[in-house]
Amino acid sequence: MARVAICAPSRAITEEMADRVLALASDYPGLELQFHPQCFLTDGHFAGSDAQRRAALAECANDPAFDSVWAARGGYGAVRIVEDVLGDLGQAAQDKRYLAYSDGGTLLAGLYRHGIGQPVHAPMPADIARDGGEGAVRRSLAYLAGEHAGLEPGLDSRPVVAFNLMTLAMVCGTPLMPDLSGHVVMVEEVAEHLYAIDRLFFHVTAHLGGIAGLRLGRVGDVPENDIDFGQAAPQIARHWCERHGIRFLGEADIGHDVANKIVPFGLAGRGAAQ
Amino acid sequence: MARVAICAPSRAITEEMADRVLALASDYPGLELQFHPQCFLTDGHFAGSDAQRRAALAECANDPAFDSVWAARGGYGAVRIVEDVLGDLGQAAQDKRYLAYSDGGTLLAGLYRHGIGQPVHAPMPADIARDGGEGAVRRSLAYLAGEHAGLEPGLDSRPVVAFNLMTLAMVCGTPLMPDLSGHVVMVEEVAEHLYAIDRLFFHVTAHLGGIAGLRLGRVGDVPENDIDFGQAAPQIARHWCERHGIRFLGEADIGHDVANKIVPFGLAGRGAAQ
Repeated sequence: MARVAICAPSRAITEEMADRVLALASDYPGLELQFHPQCFLTDGHFAGSDAQRRAALAECANDPAFDSVWAARGGYGAVRIVEDVLGDLGQAAQDKRYLAYSDGGTLLAGLYRHGIGQPVHAPMPADIARDGGEGAVRRSLAYLAGEHAGLEPGLDSRPVVAFNLMTLAMVCGTPLMPDLSGHVVMVEEVAEHLYAIDRLFFHVTAHLGGIAGLRLGRVGDVPENDIDFGQAAPQIARHWCERHGIRFLGEADIGHDVANKIVPFGLAGRGAAQ
Repeated sequence: MARVAICAPSRAITEEMADRVLALASDYPGLELQFHPQCFLTDGHFAGSDAQRRAALAECANDPAFDSVWAARGGYGAVRIVEDVLGDLGQAAQDKRYLAYSDGGTLLAGLYRHGIGQPVHAPMPADIARDGGEGAVRRSLAYLAGEHAGLEPGLDSRPVVAFNLMTLAMVCGTPLMPDLSGHVVMVEEVAEHLYAIDRLFFHVTAHLGGIAGLRLGRVGDVPENDIDFGQAAPQIARHWCERHGIRFLGEADIGHDVANKIVPFGLAGRGAAQ
């Protein structure tokens, strides 16, 4: 039996969303999900206060009864607690997989920097609210149950990470930033103007010296500006990779959408089920 | 006679905007403005190609006939050329003041890091398009003519810089970032969600160890989110300053608005006219 603890380091989900995910999970007999009550708290923007989110995340990670910790939703907030949570983690936290993406990337980054457990970029329970979101949630459920069909198809012999571009930009140069030398770095973005994408690529590529290369996930829901930017996202990525001596390795099958694939950080995605 | 070269490292202005600024400038007999034709070029988002913007900025900076270089407008783009321009600058560029704000902060940052000339956070010609924008433009015109009435009122004996928060965030940790130890750092923001402000403060305060303190300018035009953030901008700034051991020094009289005051970088704002 693979046991999964779900908490919400950023924004809250509803009981109805949890029920829909639990209903799907009943199709995976080897899997047992437990939604921490903190998932449903709200405190302004967040799923409870910083202290409540920190306590729930540490509790899930430190409980030896669970094999994985799954972030319920992104939406901003994890970065306010991750540094503290890292200091709260004991031995039981080492043996777990941690699934998240989007804002949850700050958690994955901090865990990866400190060599704690197995960070995994993957769809979250809140994806159930998207049109067609069942497929995204099932992808993570199957992965948690030990299947590898949902892995990003371009994984190769090089270590890899995957991040939302803005999330990675905010992590660069901070105590949450892992050493990514030799890594293939995948980035995706949603709901940012192309000029902001360009600005983010300046910043991120300036921080990514020594990586094996960059792959661009989907850049979705780009708002219309008062002036056409004149370049598409792949041109922007190529431009900044070239400027900063980084190999541009083409597209990646990740994004803020229901097709978002799974990327276990490091070399964990290759070979037999972990 | 104080001679001012105006070019557009980011977005273009119109001839009509330039004419309105020139009309105001006629009230300052000691001042002569020259709009570089590059100000009116457009190439997608930008005021001409990267090569055209770089050439115009270097030309203005390297021309000994000018005492100051004034960025016509922000809006994104300077960061694509500033590193190259810094390599283009000769002796005549050292003796100048450089006025800009918003996206132009990337130029001010790079100049300040390399000790070139006198970077100054100040209203730009494009502010003429704001309601009441004449007052903002006159503030810079008077400063360029040698008056100090438009200086930010809180300048004291400590060196200072002023930036748009997002612009500073993108500069952090890059080759454009100056050493700000011992500085009072002022930041302002416009048109960003409060959760994004919080995220930016995490990033920026993680990079600002050793500064004398942070002052918060105006945070304007905050878009409404689907959920109320629950904290106002000053609380956010205080939170992150406290987290990262930075003194929060209160408000600053800067912002993306017509009241935006002038902040000469370093200690240049004090004492006699430079």
